[in-house]
Amino acid sequence: MSELTGSLLGAYDPQTAKLLDFASARPAFLDRGDTPREYLERCIGRLEYDEALQAFVHIDLEGARRAADSAGERYKDGRPLSPLDGMPLGMKDVIETGDMPTEFGSGIYKGFMPHMDAAPVYWLRKAGAVILGKTATTEFAADPPGPTRNPWDLSRSPGGSSSGSAAAVAARMVPAATGTQVRGSVLRPAAYCGIFAFKPSLGTINLQGVSPISRVINHLGILAGSLADSWITTRHLSQTGGGEPGRLPLDGPAELPGARKPKTLIQLETPGWPLTPESSRAAFEEYVERLRASDITVHNRRNNEMVDAYERALEDTVRISDTLRGWENRYPMHAYLDSHPDQLRNRTRKRLEDIPPATLEDYRTARADAQALRDRHAALSEIGDALITLNSAGPAPDVTTTGNPIYGDACSVTGVPAVNLPLLAAEGLPLGVQVMGFYREDEILVAVGRWLAEAWL
Amino acid sequence: MSELTGSLLGAYDPQTAKLLDFASARPAFLDRGDTPREYLERCIGRLEYDEALQAFVHIDLEGARRAADSAGERYKDGRPLSPLDGMPLGMKDVIETGDMPTEFGSGIYKGFMPHMDAAPVYWLRKAGAVILGKTATTEFAADPPGPTRNPWDLSRSPGGSSSGSAAAVAARMVPAATGTQVRGSVLRPAAYCGIFAFKPSLGTINLQGVSPISRVINHLGILAGSLADSWITTRHLSQTGGGEPGRLPLDGPAELPGARKPKTLIQLETPGWPLTPESSRAAFEEYVERLRASDITVHNRRNNEMVDAYERALEDTVRISDTLRGWENRYPMHAYLDSHPDQLRNRTRKRLEDIPPATLEDYRTARADAQALRDRHAALSEIGDALITLNSAGPAPDVTTTGNPIYGDACSVTGVPAVNLPLLAAEGLPLGVQVMGFYREDEILVAVGRWLAEAWL
Repeated sequence: MSELTGSLLGAYDPQTAKLLDFASARPAFLDRGDTPREYLERCIGRLEYDEALQAFVHIDLEGARRAADSAGERYKDGRPLSPLDGMPLGMKDVIETGDMPTEFGSGIYKGFMPHMDAAPVYWLRKAGAVILGKTATTEFAADPPGPTRNPWDLSRSPGGSSSGSAAAVAARMVPAATGTQVRGSVLRPAAYCGIFAFKPSLGTINLQGVSPISRVINHLGILAGSLADSWITTRHLSQTGGGEPGRLPLDGPAELPGARKPKTLIQLETPGWPLTPESSRAAFEEYVERLRASDITVHNRRNNEMVDAYERALEDTVRISDTLRGWENRYPMHAYLDSHPDQLRNRTRKRLEDIPPATLEDYRTARADAQALRDRHAALSEIGDALITLNSAGPAPDVTTTGNPIYGDACSVTGVPAVNLPLLAAEGLPLGVQVMGFYREDEILVAVGRWLAEAWL
Repeated sequence: MSELTGSLLGAYDPQTAKLLDFASARPAFLDRGDTPREYLERCIGRLEYDEALQAFVHIDLEGARRAADSAGERYKDGRPLSPLDGMPLGMKDVIETGDMPTEFGSGIYKGFMPHMDAAPVYWLRKAGAVILGKTATTEFAADPPGPTRNPWDLSRSPGGSSSGSAAAVAARMVPAATGTQVRGSVLRPAAYCGIFAFKPSLGTINLQGVSPISRVINHLGILAGSLADSWITTRHLSQTGGGEPGRLPLDGPAELPGARKPKTLIQLETPGWPLTPESSRAAFEEYVERLRASDITVHNRRNNEMVDAYERALEDTVRISDTLRGWENRYPMHAYLDSHPDQLRNRTRKRLEDIPPATLEDYRTARADAQALRDRHAALSEIGDALITLNSAGPAPDVTTTGNPIYGDACSVTGVPAVNLPLLAAEGLPLGVQVMGFYREDEILVAVGRWLAEAWL
């Protein structure tokens, strides 16, 4: 494997890279120029790349074809179930499926067949989505990499933990795929693979049947070839399936919100900036200059004290996130360590054995600190329409790691919505722009993201 | 079955009814007058009654004996793991166990072997608890009764949904057992069976691996032969396993809080009162008179406007609870209806087919109403140390129903802690007193409950 090199998709240029967009393909299903089955078959045709990519850990051609044919019948009758009817999807393999194995990237769950679909799978199928297969994840959506490669450079990582979902979308095997993010696992792989992703506000998706790891800050997000598909899919899933118990779903329109040019943006460094290579920093700084040249006011730590104070507060995000997870993951991670130590990968076992789990007192403090950070974030809405930063400390690394999740901690700990926009390049590879919004104001965030994506500054 | 009548345990008198109390049995393990294995064998001896009772749906004698022997070794070394070390427990069969089937009272899960222990099982075993077996539940902890009988009258129901747990504790097969309550499923069966139960504040127990039904208002509680065991077990589980994701566990001492005589109590009718037979009302009213005779001020709707306003607000609890569950249980209940309609019991299928699921707008309203009710409840702490009411509209009904859960809705919807105290009798059967506290002030509630239980008014 490790000798694999080169791009499956040619040279990377964000302006010419081709991605699927299901929303714009759908009208042809209604006027009979195309069918969901033909759309699916084109996706299936791309699976030839999966020998090199290893984006999927399980593929269900027969089930997918059956679902696509049913969708075709509904379009023929002019009665599709939803904007997702007939949409081929990759399902991250930390999400339980009643008809396909669910292995969480772990030998402990080798061949495990859940009793039923997780809530997101149930609601996506109910909307007519076509589940093509399960996409590769790192072990329990945490550290040790899975087998997947980056389609833009096979010697590099696609990022993680939603590795297979990002690679599958980038290679146009599916228009969209599910991801989960506790630190940066939706946005970073999207950034490394040059695709769009939307991580909604914390708690807006019902996660029953999704990996029970780090639930306090776990988000489901959609990686996709277009901002439209990531919004439409996430919003439909949230509105039908509801939020986490006791929480409300996303508000906002069924279609992609109209583009909204921001008047002011807040440029963040986050603790990721010092770890970011010079060429990536330069690409981002030049982007910020182009924003300014388009009459957008950009506040940052150098010209605004409130932003600087927030940047200093963000220095705590790694500790806060580590502690929240360190307390909550005593179950199930230490239960796995007790019962199946030899089936955990070395890196995971060593981490669990070497690092004492967080104490209740640590957790109590981290919980209060997270709340203070949320309040501080919310106050920034007075001075900016949205926040921008990177999604990764440079382009995709080699395959011994899935990269540093550090740029994801701010939006994950605060639970605010965020997107990846594949607007930049560095070292000839994708470099993503992260746009972050304010809690439960997902529609505004996506509207600003749309403007930025369409403006192509 | 239906011809079974009579009591397994003699005539019911709350003052002489015998129950197990593990906390008081433990010292003998340390001074070697007794061992956990001998304690367990005495419990196993009581299983002869289970042919009539059907409290257990699965028993693991071998595993329990092995766990009791391990506990015995630890006591011999003077190093028990916790106050629960060696404690035989019944585990309600909506809680997943890695070594025993988990069937949720449903044919859909016939023989289902979960991949691992649910969080509460993991943490209880880690504390040294001895899981004797799985206790019978109604189907998915909801309406249709399971097979279990009431040990005080075999022609009657033990209540539900924690039917087997209540019957097993009352019949002294175990000192304690787990229950779950969405409406009244911990407190009501305890009341019908004449045992103690403690339902802690909402969110203070990590429910990962517990039945994914009605999670927004689902509580784990402990049914036990003594208030001490119900407090010690619940508090230890909460402190070690933590609360629900993002929530803090219970505070309070490891041992039963000291008795605290209330100065003022609030007597509630709740919507249950008009449905309660005269003899049970009389028993409760006489109890309230004895409280007054003991220099406790008792406010009620007749002498206090604030209480009357709260009583009127409580008229909404059934709708609020129905709506919260009606929205959230679309998954998994409607997923079961889609995939396994013939394996649902008729009453459940009919309910799902006939009643349209709650809409998002209904849910939004019910959620706000629940919050208003919580605020109104909290305000009552200004005029009372705790609240008292019944736990059931009379003693146990016949076995065609598990009884009306209506007295449980107030503490379930508001999420405040509550106990059942087996202090009264009506129609020759147990009648429980419910004491309700204030959110996250579980220690005070239990201290007041202890005083009431020990005062034997």
